[in-house]
Amino acid sequence: MSMTQGCFITVEGTEGVGKTTNLDFIQRCLERQGIEVVRTREPGGTPLAEDIRELLLTPREEPVAELTELMLMFAARAQHLQQVIRPALGAGKWVLCDRFTDATYAYQGGGRGMDTAQIGTLEQLVQGELRPDLTLLLDLPVATGLARARARSTPDRFESEKVNFFEAVRQHYLERAAKEPERFAVIDAEPELKQVQAQILVALKRLGVNADV
Amino acid sequence: MSMTQGCFITVEGTEGVGKTTNLDFIQRCLERQGIEVVRTREPGGTPLAEDIRELLLTPREEPVAELTELMLMFAARAQHLQQVIRPALGAGKWVLCDRFTDATYAYQGGGRGMDTAQIGTLEQLVQGELRPDLTLLLDLPVATGLARARARSTPDRFESEKVNFFEAVRQHYLERAAKEPERFAVIDAEPELKQVQAQILVALKRLGVNADV
Repeated sequence: MSMTQGCFITVEGTEGVGKTTNLDFIQRCLERQGIEVVRTREPGGTPLAEDIRELLLTPREEPVAELTELMLMFAARAQHLQQVIRPALGAGKWVLCDRFTDATYAYQGGGRGMDTAQIGTLEQLVQGELRPDLTLLLDLPVATGLARARARSTPDRFESEKVNFFEAVRQHYLERAAKEPERFAVIDAEPELKQVQAQILVALKRLGVNADV
Repeated sequence: MSMTQGCFITVEGTEGVGKTTNLDFIQRCLERQGIEVVRTREPGGTPLAEDIRELLLTPREEPVAELTELMLMFAARAQHLQQVIRPALGAGKWVLCDRFTDATYAYQGGGRGMDTAQIGTLEQLVQGELRPDLTLLLDLPVATGLARARARSTPDRFESEKVNFFEAVRQHYLERAAKEPERFAVIDAEPELKQVQAQILVALKRLGVNADV
């Protein structure tokens, strides 16, 4: 067990930006460097947190209070932090997480217009000083991402509403990235995969990772 | 639909103090006065909040982070407030609730020793200025309550540990009551039922209820 704290990397982005493919790539890069990687996701990452995720995703007739959704999200996060993320980092492992608190700001704050001060209160309560060491924001025009995700290109009316929602999410992500340029790396996810991954390799160098692809 | 806001009454206390019997009694008293009563409970009170209650009560191998438990409690409360309590009060109905936030302070704060400042942060976030108009604290020595609840009188070793836990809960309840004497009525739940109910009737007079038993 290493005495050095591991690094905490999160990958963010809207639908269809290629998170899974690039998470796989990052994991391979790190493991080739001999780094022990704990790969996880939010909301979820422990049995209880996955149960909370189920509650969040289950369609129900009862309208869900925005604050309830927000608190369920952070309840799952508190569990994930205690059971998975903090122990792994403390043991010198690196944690690679598919979405984290930036997604809460982008989706609940940017997308739904929730008060970001409330999100900040819960972030402080649940995380204390813990923040990711590096956040890779995979960025893509929303229409391109939705088309990729659904393998078609013409949005219908319902899709159009979604475009507006995801556009707000994307803008909120980009604003957060602009405010914290040392933590964020904005990756242009539009070109072909090799070019995307070249950008990711540059970002990983910030953490001292010189991966050979 | 009345334009006057209804009253919010909560009933608190440790195990075996007679909450259910006395909730029935209070409901009868109010209804005899022509008051429309919404009777509910925490954690729970809506389908989603009851699902969250299930998550809280399901035994699991995974240790549950204290903060996760606390946030699940307040997530359920936010839902209960939006779906049941605030609409009922706004429509002039009275809400009679089996436990509320004082229980969170007493059990999680007093019993488990969690930071009550964290509870206060969540209380403020979820409730804003909303507090019960009257809180009836049914008070009983812990050993008496546990014996009543389990219909036996000699605690074993495991029971003894529980006695210490519930004693801390009881003390925390009493401290809260002492700090907010206008909101709380401490009801001595040890004498026979008629005497307990006589005290409850006195407390209900604070809300202008002159019930004839």
